This record gives sequence, C-alpha cells and structure tokens, in this order.
Amino acid sequence: MSETKSTNIVLFSGDYDKAMAAYIIANGAAAYDHKVTIFHTFWGLNALRKDELVKTNKGFLEKMFGKMMPRGADKMGISKMNYAGMGQKMIKKVIKKHNAMELPQLIEMAQEQDVELVACTMTMDLLGLQKEELLEEIEYAGVAAYLGDAEDGNVNLFI
Amino acid sequence: MSETKSTNIVLFSGDYDKAMAAYIIANGAAAYDHKVTIFHTFWGLNALRKDELVKTNKGFLEKMFGKMMPRGADKMGISKMNYAGMGQKMIKKVIKKHNAMELPQLIEMAQEQDVELVACTMTMDLLGLQKEELLEEIEYAGVAAYLGDAEDGNVNLFI
Amino acid sequence: MSETKSTNIVLFSGDYDKAMAAYIIANGAAAYDHKVTIFHTFWGLNALRKDELVKTNKGFLEKMFGKMMPRGADKMGISKMNYAGMGQKMIKKVIKKHNAMELPQLIEMAQEQDVELVACTMTMDLLGLQKEELLEEIEYAGVAAYLGDAEDGNVNLFI
Repeated sequence: MSETKSTNIVLFSGDYDKAMAAYIIANGAAAYDHKVTIFHTFWGLNALRKDELVKTNKGFLEKMFGKMMPRGADKMGISKMNYAGMGQKMIKKVIKKHNAMELPQLIEMAQEQDVELVACTMTMDLLGLQKEELLEEIEYAGVAAYLGDAEDGNVNLFI
Repeated sequence: MSETKSTNIVLFSGDYDKAMAAYIIANGAAAYDHKVTIFHTFWGLNALRKDELVKTNKGFLEKMFGKMMPRGADKMGISKMNYAGMGQKMIKKVIKKHNAMELPQLIEMAQEQDVELVACTMTMDLLGLQKEELLEEIEYAGVAAYLGDAEDGNVNLFI
Repeated sequence: MSETKSTNIVLFSGDYDKAMAAYIIANGAAAYDHKVTIFHTFWGLNALRKDELVKTNKGFLEKMFGKMMPRGADKMGISKMNYAGMGQKMIKKVIKKHNAMELPQLIEMAQEQDVELVACTMTMDLLGLQKEELLEEIEYAGVAAYLGDAEDGNVNLFI
C-alpha cells in the first residue's frame, strides 16, 4: 500500500507572510513524499514574477497592473503591520537572525523538491501577465486542472 | 463506482476578488459533477445581499452594520489595491475586456448549476441580516450542517 | 466502523473575527466527536498569548514584535471595518446582545472539549515568543506534526 498522498495549495494571496506559510507547508509535505502542487492565482501570481523588468507589449490597464503589483517574491508586502514596508524588513531581519529561509529561497527549495508550481492562466489573461515575466520551469493551467488534482488530495488549502 | 464527489467552500471574506475565486472554483467543481456547497459566513454573507434597499425593523447596531456593509456582490471591494474603489473598477474593466464573468454573473451561474448557496444563520443573527435582504432560493443553516457536508467532502476550502 | 474523523485548522490570521470562525468550527467539530487540532502559526499565535505582561529577556526586534502584536485574543482587531478598534467593539456588543460567545470564551470551551491547541515553534522562534507568554496546557510543534495530522484529516482548513 504505497499510495502517494497529495497536498494541493491554492495561493491566492500576494502577501509575503502568507506565501511563506504556503511554501513552508509545501516543502514540508514534499519532504514527507507527498505529491505537492501550488496553484498560483490572482495576487499569488506575483510570487512567480521575475524581479527584473521584462519588456512586453501590453494595453494600458495591463501595464498599470504590471506596475502596481510587486515584481517577484522578494518585493511582496506582509499582511499585518506592513507600515509601508517596515514590517516586511523586520520579518526579513528575524528570518536572517534565526537562519530561517526567506521567500525566494523557499521557492527555490520547492522547485528542487519537485513541487509543481502552477500559474493560473485565467489570471494571467485578466492581469495581462505574460510567460516571459514569470520564473522558468513552472506549469500553466486553469481551474479544471486544479480540481482534477484536489479532488483526490489529502491536504487541500486555500491561502 | 459512480460515487459523487463534493466540494464545500466556507466563504468568510467580503472581498470581491476572493468571492470571485470561490465562485470560479465552485462553478468548475459543479461542471465536474461535484455536489457543491458555498457556506456564506461573516462578511461573505454580503455576496448574497440584494442590491436594493430593503425596509426592515432593526435595532441601532444592526442598522449600522447594514449601512456599513456592501449591499450585494457588485458593491464589494477588492482585497488588494482597492484604493477607494479604483482597484475594483480596474478589475471589472479587465473582466469585461476579456469577456470573463463579473461576480453577480458567477453567482447566477452557480445557482443555475445547482450549487447550494447557504447563509450562516448565526451570522445573520449577529449582524442583524434578515431573509428579506438576501437573494431568493438560498438555504439557511448553521455550522453543524456545514460540518455534516464537509466531513465527507473531497475539496474543503476556507476563503 | 467507528472510525474517528478529524478536523485540522491552521490559524494563520491574527484577526478577531477569523479566529472566531476558526474556534466556532473547531467547537462544532469537537461536539461531533471529531479529533480537532488548531495549529496556531504566524499572527494566529496572538490568540494564545496571555493578556498580562510577562517579563522576558529578549533582543530588540523580538521586544518590538512583542509590543506591536496584541496580547491575547481579547485584544485582536477585526479584519474588516476595524476603524481603529470601533468595529471590534461593535462586534463584541452584538455578541453580548445575542448571548453568543466572545473569543476568549470560545477558546476556553475548546480547551474543555479537548481541542488540541498547538503553537508553531518555528513562529515562536522567529517572533521571539516564549512559552511563559502563552496560555497553559497548549502543545508545541512544527509543520511536520501538522502534516502528520492533516494528511489523514477529513476537514482541513487554512484560516
């Protein structure tokens, strides 16, 4: 009975701390030999953005969204006590002090552990995000694919 | 083995974008022949409010809550970059531009697909919301009914 | 076939209303004879803080976090319409008016019903929270223990 268990996380949030929680759970589950998927939708997609500026050809609204949203995990704010970025700096300081991992490292570790990172194609359409703007080696899928995984999943979370 | 799978969503949030995510997942699961329930509690109840003003006989606090909370799905703000409603307008614009569905349409579609929309009676009591203020053809239940569904569910999410 | 069902909640949020929802579901599930665990992580840990000031020996950053974060369930703000605490007062008023339970009572009830209250040790490290600052009779564990419970759980929620 070596049935593989699975963990499926919808990462909706664009908050640094919530994304940390998602990736810590994902990395833990992968270490436990779960098949793990993080489905990045809405603001959660920002965690998959490259941090450099990527030249793209976009409409006005899509350009606006692109500018207003953080470029990559390292630039995301925290959900509580952000105080214009001060809270995020404090969190990063304590993470370093305790030799814990920052979000970009957690994402790298997830990729090394074969956690499947999925970008929601519907959100990409809506917000005008293009594949060139996102990290390499991620998957592209919609809600149907998510449900196909989740309906047989053991741990399903919306974060 | 034609066992029906089930998806049970607690919609706690009163944010337009989070409610969109809840209804997109619900409609997807219904299309997959899941038995789907959305249990609306706390601010999530606002998604079920009628948009017209309904005359009711309420105490002071209940009147205050009624006024401060958005009347219906279309008036809900977004969780990020709301900027006094500007973010919500931008989201609605891109939804139209891409021929995607706005929240009120997603709710209609859910009703057509027999997604069970439940209003949490405890929250209605607390916030002083009355049945006349909510959409037609919804169910009324408490946490016990939710747990009865969820304990055998395949996809359980708190949004 | 008297198999025990289980409910596992990750309480990430430090909002009064979200913690209420978590504890209402937990108490309901316990009444249904589920084995129930609430894993308090990040801001959710604040729900387990004692309300009195506990003398501790901490570094500067940890002291800052300790001061900025609410000391105990009763001092947590709400996620919507907090308006510098006014929303929280209104919520407490309607709770009293309807003879419902405030958050500290919900937590007490959970302890009486043997809901397992777990404090995430990684977060305690990061934010510099010490056992003396938290309620009595709680457990201390990490993400591995959470996953061990959740992978066989019936209702898994992230709040």
